[in-house]
Amino acid sequence: MYTNQTVIFKHKPVIIGSFSIVGPKEGKGNFGPYFNYVMKDDCFGEKSYEKAEMKMLKTAIVGAIEDAKIKASDVNLLLAGDLLNQIISSSYAARDFDFAFLGLFGACSTMAESMAIGASLIDGHEFDTVVCSTGSHFSTAERQFRFPLELGNQRPPTSQWTVTGAGACVLSNKGVGPRITMATFGKVIDYGIMDVNDMGAAMAPAAMNTMLAHFRDTKTTPDDYDLIVTGDLGKLGSEILIDLMEDQGIKLGLNYNDCGQMYFTRNQNTLSGGSGCGCSATVLNSYIIKKLRTGEYKRVLFMPTGALMSTTATQQGETIPGVCHAIVLECDESVKDKKVKDVTLSRSKNKKILETVEENSQK
Amino acid sequence: MYTNQTVIFKHKPVIIGSFSIVGPKEGKGNFGPYFNYVMKDDCFGEKSYEKAEMKMLKTAIVGAIEDAKIKASDVNLLLAGDLLNQIISSSYAARDFDFAFLGLFGACSTMAESMAIGASLIDGHEFDTVVCSTGSHFSTAERQFRFPLELGNQRPPTSQWTVTGAGACVLSNKGVGPRITMATFGKVIDYGIMDVNDMGAAMAPAAMNTMLAHFRDTKTTPDDYDLIVTGDLGKLGSEILIDLMEDQGIKLGLNYNDCGQMYFTRNQNTLSGGSGCGCSATVLNSYIIKKLRTGEYKRVLFMPTGALMSTTATQQGETIPGVCHAIVLECDESVKDKKVKDVTLSRSKNKKILETVEENSQK
Repeated sequence: MYTNQTVIFKHKPVIIGSFSIVGPKEGKGNFGPYFNYVMKDDCFGEKSYEKAEMKMLKTAIVGAIEDAKIKASDVNLLLAGDLLNQIISSSYAARDFDFAFLGLFGACSTMAESMAIGASLIDGHEFDTVVCSTGSHFSTAERQFRFPLELGNQRPPTSQWTVTGAGACVLSNKGVGPRITMATFGKVIDYGIMDVNDMGAAMAPAAMNTMLAHFRDTKTTPDDYDLIVTGDLGKLGSEILIDLMEDQGIKLGLNYNDCGQMYFTRNQNTLSGGSGCGCSATVLNSYIIKKLRTGEYKRVLFMPTGALMSTTATQQGETIPGVCHAIVLECDESVKDKKVKDVTLSRSKNKKILETVEENSQK
Repeated sequence: MYTNQTVIFKHKPVIIGSFSIVGPKEGKGNFGPYFNYVMKDDCFGEKSYEKAEMKMLKTAIVGAIEDAKIKASDVNLLLAGDLLNQIISSSYAARDFDFAFLGLFGACSTMAESMAIGASLIDGHEFDTVVCSTGSHFSTAERQFRFPLELGNQRPPTSQWTVTGAGACVLSNKGVGPRITMATFGKVIDYGIMDVNDMGAAMAPAAMNTMLAHFRDTKTTPDDYDLIVTGDLGKLGSEILIDLMEDQGIKLGLNYNDCGQMYFTRNQNTLSGGSGCGCSATVLNSYIIKKLRTGEYKRVLFMPTGALMSTTATQQGETIPGVCHAIVLECDESVKDKKVKDVTLSRSKNKKILETVEENSQK
């Protein structure tokens, strides 16, 4: 059932498993203790950063399936995308799994895009079990979108730091866990920003547009959520969003934050904060889902934004449009009033998952 | 409802409108008389080939909506993707429409990917009306994936010609027209092909995999279809597919063909045939849908394939994986036994559509 841009899920698909993997810098950031696996170095034993990114995605997918305590053969479909040209990290990761694949591109909004489509497919009884995944890598994004790392280019204060990390979750029509109750599908919005070092400003109008649509369609207000979280608007972009929303008569309070803004500590010197598909994906699949599982969060509005830019478009004088998809996550009925034992994978189990990934890579 | 990789649609979403636009060379090809609009030159009045590609997509979307005799405000969602880095043609086209957007990447399989997801969303009652679209441009693809046009590089006999064209269709939960009755979601398959000038060989194994899954899941055989059509395997790739299927005990007969192989006339000198997202998209949204509307085709298995390659992956010594999604299209009950008046847009109406596109571009 839908109202305008928002689908209200009748059967409320369940997140039965999740996994997050990050680089060493990210592991030292504010969410460090929540991630399932922190890589020792950001090459992850591979010969190129791109191959490392592919391996991160594979690790996240295998990890989420193990966390869900199901077999890979129980999975019907993988929905994934990333920032690289022709989403190679996702496509090449998909090659090592024996289930169907839908490739997506929503830039840094991909985690929500994959979950919105995945939840729709489950809610409509098209499939029973799907995996949603995305990730990014600082070094692959820098060289593709900006400058060679070797140039040691200076970064303006509005610039953000692409997170090296990947996240994945398993959605199912049965089981216990946080549920996806609604999804608001976003429009492409362009306010004419042209600075590739100011992604927050380019994406904030899309976040506003989707947020207004969400509140309108669902008749909710910011107070109905324990947490409203954007993906990677960063410090500047999230301030712009707060201003834009205030102009529309909606005040975002202490329950609003941005994954990119929260990601790194101040002394990690990432200027306007974290960005990239991996930013919101790793925060969702660690910190947020953990707190939904224990019932600390009852209802979360997760709305990552994507800047739909490309170097070709920029070189041809184009502005940067943005898009934002929103999903509502609610804790399981069983933890609505009480605390439960945390079911997230403990770090000690990760060795086994990595071995499984290594094994798959040999195929 | 699904069986393994295949979803059987209970409510059989209807294709209520479609539109195809192509370049001048394509207009002189075998499907020339069937296209809705043939551009006079492949810059389409724009300053770059990329901008021309964006405009083609917009034209196709506007055209399909007009053909469906609905208003743009009736559309809930656009599902689109293309070959360009960060699918800019689709994202920038989406900017000019006031409905939600889901960006996809399935390389040349995108037409089926968008229709498989779109039909699922309608069948599951998530949305009522969606537009599916994709396109490609010879000159943008050549310079992104291969060599600058100015180099005048020689083309090996296995190479294919990227179609300049875009197609779009409107899917709805009500109305009269061809129906989408099933969709088989494909896996990523890699047989180790490394030659970027031999896409047919790289994609044929994915076509085989999805075709076998489709026949297994739906208990159909090639004889159950008036037409089984792949997207852009080309002359060589479709021969490989016939051989691969024969090895599996399934004989593809005269009802099997490939859009890329059929696209150009022999004297157009495109070597192994047409390719690109626009190849299968323009054939589907002209020739095939026209023949389904009149009842000349009762049941078509449409299965375009995508080569998930990127220049970065190729430079790092990677092979080229392929993917193939299949959808089954059936003619409307009302034309199962009789001929009806053709409802495709006549060429004379196209001027109006182009004016609408021009108007939208001014925004």
